[in-house]
Amino acid sequence: MIECSACRSKIPANNNNSKAVARAYVRHRSDVSYKTRFLNLLLVVGDCSLVGLQPILVYMSKEGGRFEFSPISVNFLTETAKVFFAITMLLIQARQKKVGEKSLLSVSSFVQAARNNVIFAVPAFLYAINNYLKFIMQLYFNPATVKMLSNLKVLVIAVLLKMIMKRRFSILQWEALALLLIGICVNQLRTLPEGSSAMVPVATGAYLYTLIFVSVPSFASVYNEYALKSQFETSIYLQNLFLYGYGAIFNFLAILVTAIFKGPSSLDILHGHSRATMLLICNNAAQGILSSFFFKYADTILKKYSSTLATIFTGIASAVLFGHTLTINFILGISIVFISMHQFFSPLSKVKDGPRDGILEVVDSQNSQS
Amino acid sequence: MIECSACRSKIPANNNNSKAVARAYVRHRSDVSYKTRFLNLLLVVGDCSLVGLQPILVYMSKEGGRFEFSPISVNFLTETAKVFFAITMLLIQARQKKVGEKSLLSVSSFVQAARNNVIFAVPAFLYAINNYLKFIMQLYFNPATVKMLSNLKVLVIAVLLKMIMKRRFSILQWEALALLLIGICVNQLRTLPEGSSAMVPVATGAYLYTLIFVSVPSFASVYNEYALKSQFETSIYLQNLFLYGYGAIFNFLAILVTAIFKGPSSLDILHGHSRATMLLICNNAAQGILSSFFFKYADTILKKYSSTLATIFTGIASAVLFGHTLTINFILGISIVFISMHQFFSPLSKVKDGPRDGILEVVDSQNSQS
Repeated sequence: MIECSACRSKIPANNNNSKAVARAYVRHRSDVSYKTRFLNLLLVVGDCSLVGLQPILVYMSKEGGRFEFSPISVNFLTETAKVFFAITMLLIQARQKKVGEKSLLSVSSFVQAARNNVIFAVPAFLYAINNYLKFIMQLYFNPATVKMLSNLKVLVIAVLLKMIMKRRFSILQWEALALLLIGICVNQLRTLPEGSSAMVPVATGAYLYTLIFVSVPSFASVYNEYALKSQFETSIYLQNLFLYGYGAIFNFLAILVTAIFKGPSSLDILHGHSRATMLLICNNAAQGILSSFFFKYADTILKKYSSTLATIFTGIASAVLFGHTLTINFILGISIVFISMHQFFSPLSKVKDGPRDGILEVVDSQNSQS
Repeated sequence: MIECSACRSKIPANNNNSKAVARAYVRHRSDVSYKTRFLNLLLVVGDCSLVGLQPILVYMSKEGGRFEFSPISVNFLTETAKVFFAITMLLIQARQKKVGEKSLLSVSSFVQAARNNVIFAVPAFLYAINNYLKFIMQLYFNPATVKMLSNLKVLVIAVLLKMIMKRRFSILQWEALALLLIGICVNQLRTLPEGSSAMVPVATGAYLYTLIFVSVPSFASVYNEYALKSQFETSIYLQNLFLYGYGAIFNFLAILVTAIFKGPSSLDILHGHSRATMLLICNNAAQGILSSFFFKYADTILKKYSSTLATIFTGIASAVLFGHTLTINFILGISIVFISMHQFFSPLSKVKDGPRDGILEVVDSQNSQS
């Protein structure tokens, strides 16, 4: 039995995911207290610091202006680092467990947990594909229009949240998300080469590519949020263990496939790595772990705003530290982003007829029917 | 005695402007009915059509790629055309007047009206200065940064409306106005020459100039709105007669001053005019008359949105008619403007504790004290 946090009535617990996720969401939404706000702030500050550190670490990792290591090895090592972190946290939790609680370390409970968390193979697979696509995109194929279109991710995530998480947005929130997208685009406009500011029609292939590049990571994030929240009672470290475990497996498979095509030298996953690249991998891993906290305790939209804030702070910091001039685009772009943020999280933008009650009613009526 | 449109209680009428304007504003705001909406729509459509016609008439008015006439003569002829229109409308009104009503054409009532409407000398003077400044700006001095900064007019107008008209805006409306400003800037970014996209510090003189160029027309519009609404019962054509009468006098004085400096040839105000320039003058006059209706029956903000809409429609029309490609800037800019417009006029953005009642209470307490 689970207690409703609003009316304190008991609702029977069951394994139906769509109901469980609705309930997890209800709990999350009904708990917008001081504590939640503080947690959100902590997540955003942590995320911004890690993202801000990244360019410095990337710079330090370059040798002679280029990377010596294979990007797949970075992804694999990152996933492995995250798995180790999850195991460490689980061991600490296991030590602190009270007498009578079931140990997570027993074989039977691990098998049970593995069965419950097989859902994480989906986001892990999507993330692995996305990381590979990102790498390809940076190397071979990156027209400005595609980069611009890939900002549509924000809206795709919102649509997926509405479809998968049954989340409802007010018109003001949709407008705020559109403004976030526009603000990022305005900031990027300055990086467009001269003459490409017109809406140049790109090849159909590029549109298809953009569609994949936009939908895969969006779907990965939203499905990850769904998976983390659908088994809300499960420890986040156990959930992470499976998510990153699957991630490590998929990246390891990619390394094997590369080895088949490019020869066994690809198997030397530590080739070209230095102390700086290890720090980069730790930073990546920490960002990944923080994402899980975003998805489980906040949501994908907050993560998106946080990433944008990180870009803004990096821009301001580089202007202050290295004396760059701030462009008009940057100033207009961040003004739009700040207005968007204020509107999205403003009490005015709350969905009118209470999504909380709405979802609880659906859960209730489903329960009474069964 | 005036009847309150909300509670039907009688309020004593008096000549105090600040009270009368508040009441006019109250009447205006409390009457957001189907009729008002229709009138607003009509104003916007009319304004957009006239503004859209303007570039075509300007093109037709050029002879050998340049204008043969003096811009002051255009301003003077425009004011004169508006005076004739106002007189015509007043004559039509005088014919339709019922027996017993006081004729506007009698000398005593004209003198009385002139005394009541001396206030219009202020906006007429400001408009005359602004028209001259505009001309100077186009000829001699127009850096992109100044053009960008002059968009701040939107916010200056809002601040002046708050100060002079005691108008209150919600946070969402302030944000919407900021978005309008940003949207216009984003659209203009493409016209900036390459390399000027950084915030280049302009000379102190330019800032001073921008300050004047931003504040004079803003103050003219808001003071005009104040003057038109403060004597709400007076016929708009009588108000226009004085506004444009003063305007014609100020422009005529400018012609005389020019004649002193440049010789008597400047007195030939019809020099260089053709049928096309007469159409241009009629268009200018019609825009001016429409502005009065905006200021009296709607407000300066709606006029500002209408001008922006006109720019957007002109952009789209020129793309459709002449096959121009729409730039990314244009698409991002108009998206921001449309979101801004929706938010500014959305019921969500209403000021919380009713400005209507607030103002009526002030009027009431002032009345009970006197």
